[in-house]
Amino acid sequence: MTYLETLKGMGYSLTTSEPFNGKFMAAVRIGNLVYTAGQVSQLGPVAIKGKVGADVSLEKGYEAARMCAINCIQAAHSIAGEGSIARVIKVLGMVNVAPEFDNTPGVIHGASDLFNSVFGEAGRHARSAVGMVIPFNFAVEVETIFEVHG
Amino acid sequence: MTYLETLKGMGYSLTTSEPFNGKFMAAVRIGNLVYTAGQVSQLGPVAIKGKVGADVSLEKGYEAARMCAINCIQAAHSIAGEGSIARVIKVLGMVNVAPEFDNTPGVIHGASDLFNSVFGEAGRHARSAVGMVIPFNFAVEVETIFEVHG
Amino acid sequence: MTYLETLKGMGYSLTTSEPFNGKFMAAVRIGNLVYTAGQVSQLGPVAIKGKVGADVSLEKGYEAARMCAINCIQAAHSIAGEGSIARVIKVLGMVNVAPEFDNTPGVIHGASDLFNSVFGEAGRHARSAVGMVIPFNFAVEVETIFEVHG
Repeated sequence: MTYLETLKGMGYSLTTSEPFNGKFMAAVRIGNLVYTAGQVSQLGPVAIKGKVGADVSLEKGYEAARMCAINCIQAAHSIAGEGSIARVIKVLGMVNVAPEFDNTPGVIHGASDLFNSVFGEAGRHARSAVGMVIPFNFAVEVETIFEVHG
Repeated sequence: MTYLETLKGMGYSLTTSEPFNGKFMAAVRIGNLVYTAGQVSQLGPVAIKGKVGADVSLEKGYEAARMCAINCIQAAHSIAGEGSIARVIKVLGMVNVAPEFDNTPGVIHGASDLFNSVFGEAGRHARSAVGMVIPFNFAVEVETIFEVHG
Repeated sequence: MTYLETLKGMGYSLTTSEPFNGKFMAAVRIGNLVYTAGQVSQLGPVAIKGKVGADVSLEKGYEAARMCAINCIQAAHSIAGEGSIARVIKVLGMVNVAPEFDNTPGVIHGASDLFNSVFGEAGRHARSAVGMVIPFNFAVEVETIFEVHG
């Protein structure tokens, strides 16, 4: 089963999209690496916003991180083509944290679990999972470095 | 017109500088990639300091991000030579945010617009733009990965 | 003297370890680059936790960053083999900051000084040193990109 079939089985149909938004790229390729822009917790019309640990529960934050991971795959496709991903290399998981909340790994597991489920051993990435201020009050933002096929 | 000529036309004359400060490098090259250190919002004697959204307006923050982008170019030159930049790959834009301020993209547009103006299509980069604590109260810090010529 | 001998002379004996923790890798190699996961301020049973500038002094924060750097070396070894590191390329130093504390460079010097001492000129890295929220109240987290031998 390809990772696209796995994603489809999970209910995620990716679409092709324009990578440049007038300011920056959703992703940039150099050689066999693709760097995505930071992807926020929104899929289509559904957004998860707010501070994790206050407005947003850990479970909802986990779901938000999963959304970000899907968007990272989509972003990689926008520049390297559908089905081009060979491996997940590096994840920077950024959580919009409420004061005192520091279980940022528990949130970013939502992205890691998605990558591991979808890509199997090729999904095994290095990662940091930290708290900061995310644009426009989104709950989570994730940027990813992928290896892509020639 | 080369990007150095474009920069000059904007009033920016870059100088060569020593890349090592005794602790870390302004930039490191490996293959055709250059990783810059985080560059703060200071050009010569002019620094923009303070929390964006409180001490520093959005407009001033935008200008601060632009300064950081100039310093990233300068940092790349310090290790790869003047005029060596082929492309802007990845930008991490870090904003010194006041509580409640989350328009970090609006600030980091100052860096993105500079790169797009100076390098044209080769300036189109992937990016994250987030809020955190910046050293010594500088308003903005930006680190960049560039592609450089052989 | 190899860097392993230097480390040993400083009292650090590295061990081999399993790189995958069920969620993510301690480090991932692609070509001659190794990306580590974020490494926190703990060595064996000794952890440095708390907010730098309040619970944790600058000096203790410096020591925490040094621990993180050791763990980054250990993480690189877990995937590329003992003694494989050729050069330190890029460091992202993340400090668990108390309100008003912004001497994040002074903290991350603990990691930079360790890399420079252990690797000499090959330890000279590009770096950002910023403040944010670190998982489980660790004082410091550092992620590193290393160049490794073929």
